[in-house]
Amino acid sequence: MALFEPGVGYVDISSGQLKGATNRYVKTFNDLEGLYGDTAAFQALASRHGNEVAYEVTDYKASSNPGDIIIGVTRMEPGKVGDEYYMTRGHIHARPNRPEMYYGESGLGVMLLESPDGQVRTIEIGPRTMCYVPPFWIHRSVNVGREPLVMTFSYPADSGQDYDIIAKAGGMRSRIVDDGEGGWKAIDNTGYRARPQTLVDSIMAMVD
Amino acid sequence: MALFEPGVGYVDISSGQLKGATNRYVKTFNDLEGLYGDTAAFQALASRHGNEVAYEVTDYKASSNPGDIIIGVTRMEPGKVGDEYYMTRGHIHARPNRPEMYYGESGLGVMLLESPDGQVRTIEIGPRTMCYVPPFWIHRSVNVGREPLVMTFSYPADSGQDYDIIAKAGGMRSRIVDDGEGGWKAIDNTGYRARPQTLVDSIMAMVD
Repeated sequence: MALFEPGVGYVDISSGQLKGATNRYVKTFNDLEGLYGDTAAFQALASRHGNEVAYEVTDYKASSNPGDIIIGVTRMEPGKVGDEYYMTRGHIHARPNRPEMYYGESGLGVMLLESPDGQVRTIEIGPRTMCYVPPFWIHRSVNVGREPLVMTFSYPADSGQDYDIIAKAGGMRSRIVDDGEGGWKAIDNTGYRARPQTLVDSIMAMVD
Repeated sequence: MALFEPGVGYVDISSGQLKGATNRYVKTFNDLEGLYGDTAAFQALASRHGNEVAYEVTDYKASSNPGDIIIGVTRMEPGKVGDEYYMTRGHIHARPNRPEMYYGESGLGVMLLESPDGQVRTIEIGPRTMCYVPPFWIHRSVNVGREPLVMTFSYPADSGQDYDIIAKAGGMRSRIVDDGEGGWKAIDNTGYRARPQTLVDSIMAMVD
């Protein structure tokens, strides 16, 4: 096995970027079509700001070898579509038994988690909050604050991302919305369709 | 596979601890006998402070399953033994192809890295510095500042630690000492014995 050189980066909180990253990707608002409950509000947003960056990821990835890890930074704009807070697309890992760590740097977020069988959990993430997303949980981060949400993260390099699991269920089971007082609450997503037990069983059996 | 519950912790910078950790361990100065070049200075320190905590680790470990990760916080006192800065015992992973991420929270550290074939690297870690320790590198953190060194970390849950690889070589190849101006420099460890090529080859062949 060949040696990699040690890596060093610097987390720039104000830009929400990892300086020294090997990879960067962005999602524009146009990329997020279909995620939000209020379609009219989304179209109004997209018509004005569709090509602007909704969130960005910069990471340091030495390899995608089994046993390696990827580390990086994510930054998300604050705002709402109707009463629903801005969020990431969300995913389960393609190898679903892979976990992920998120760590709050600035802003206020919620990690929305859903198990394949439809259990929902929410974890609020402020600065210095360390969140462990266990294996097998679909997860999405939501910016419930008024500032950009910046988090660092790490996860196994061979995890991969499966976004379709959410789309096929009509979204995640809960939506994170304004509670009317500037805070947040989780409400039911009325378009959610529970996964068949056979699908749940096949996901939970994927241990490599 | 059973579901784990999501985990949440809080990194308390002032204590250097992860609140919500599942595990904690400490190393006292007595535990560090044999590490430092200046034996007389070490004995003087140990006679006064031998049972005090030199460094502490608090972590969140859901499992040691392949594919899982461990996340946590490490805190090390500032100080020197003779002119050599306080340091951790250091290790290579028992599965040597496992990496580790360290992230500076407060204080000033140096990550001292050594490949099995004796290459040395140093990475200075201040607040917001993200350091990637690649697979196969022996690593040790050193507190070169005047405040406690606090870092968060994550690494694969099945990595394990092998400390003997350092002891068997008479220590790491370099020592991190005061440069005479309150900064740091790396000098040769005169007691270091290079590993035989057969041992180097066997370590580099361990890819799971």
